[in-house]
Amino acid sequence: MDINILLFDDFESLDVFDPVEILGRLKEHNLKFISMNGEIIKSRQGTEIITHSFCETDGEYILLIPGGQGTRALVNDEIFIQKLYKMALSSKYCLTVCTGSALLAKTGILNGLRATSNKRAFDWVTSVNKDVLWVQRARWITEGKFYTSSGVSAGMDMALGFISDLMGMSKAREIAYLMEYIWNDDSSEDKFV
Amino acid sequence: MDINILLFDDFESLDVFDPVEILGRLKEHNLKFISMNGEIIKSRQGTEIITHSFCETDGEYILLIPGGQGTRALVNDEIFIQKLYKMALSSKYCLTVCTGSALLAKTGILNGLRATSNKRAFDWVTSVNKDVLWVQRARWITEGKFYTSSGVSAGMDMALGFISDLMGMSKAREIAYLMEYIWNDDSSEDKFV
Repeated sequence: MDINILLFDDFESLDVFDPVEILGRLKEHNLKFISMNGEIIKSRQGTEIITHSFCETDGEYILLIPGGQGTRALVNDEIFIQKLYKMALSSKYCLTVCTGSALLAKTGILNGLRATSNKRAFDWVTSVNKDVLWVQRARWITEGKFYTSSGVSAGMDMALGFISDLMGMSKAREIAYLMEYIWNDDSSEDKFV
Repeated sequence: MDINILLFDDFESLDVFDPVEILGRLKEHNLKFISMNGEIIKSRQGTEIITHSFCETDGEYILLIPGGQGTRALVNDEIFIQKLYKMALSSKYCLTVCTGSALLAKTGILNGLRATSNKRAFDWVTSVNKDVLWVQRARWITEGKFYTSSGVSAGMDMALGFISDLMGMSKAREIAYLMEYIWNDDSSEDKFV
């Protein structure tokens, strides 16, 4: 299965590379960095990354949507949001980190579903779509195929939670151990609310 | 001050992007992704990143050296190690994550100094240079201008420790809070030894 990682200018790099570190350890999966036009994308931290185009994605895939400053403009980009809706709809699983949930919420696909986001940007994110059942106290939220996480580092804990759901707790613990990471494995425990 | 982030093929992406997330929050600093020949570098996770050349670096700088599978070949690349020695020598501060300390150790600049590395690769790393005073139980080690950390995620804790040394504990705590990260702030506490 492909893991499609959606990049856009001014994305927050750790929102991507925390989950990528974990998902990249699944040998039977293929990481693919994509953007709307398949161009070079620059993160908020100035990393310039080569990407493939949205439309090159097919088959069964996991979609990862990071957050970052770039989301503020993108929620108003109708073409981007329409394309994102189609990608999210076709995905087998869809994971967001930090303000990535604002982008996904804007598509309408989360309407009536629970979701969370960065606590420092919560007012803005929730204002993007009030039909989402926003949960403030959560490290991450699982709602069917949708996983949304809190700010930046919470993406790591969510990705391990995703692995645990998919492949069992022992696999998640093994990956955390190999990364020398102390996993906050309780999705409802949130020190940053 | 520039923060020069040294990339090479098959580097471990989180070794880079954990510290980058933290160092990137220092407004008065400039992140620069560099490689020996200034080419496109591919991480172990398949991320293709545009870099500048080694020789374009000057002035006062911090050097960040990640680890990853790519270090195994690079310790035997004499030209690379010679260039790395000069860069580390000229740096104001030099930080390594995971097996990045094997590369730095190979230059000889750590001889007689304490350092640490990934516990899952410890035998190999320490075999690269036995004149380094390798410390097994440590989340990270500070030795003058040199900071070396344990595996992958330990780079985050080390980077916050570096910020704390440079700008005070409250600045480090503020950054951890903004990232919703639970900082393991005791460098000698190591659950992975």
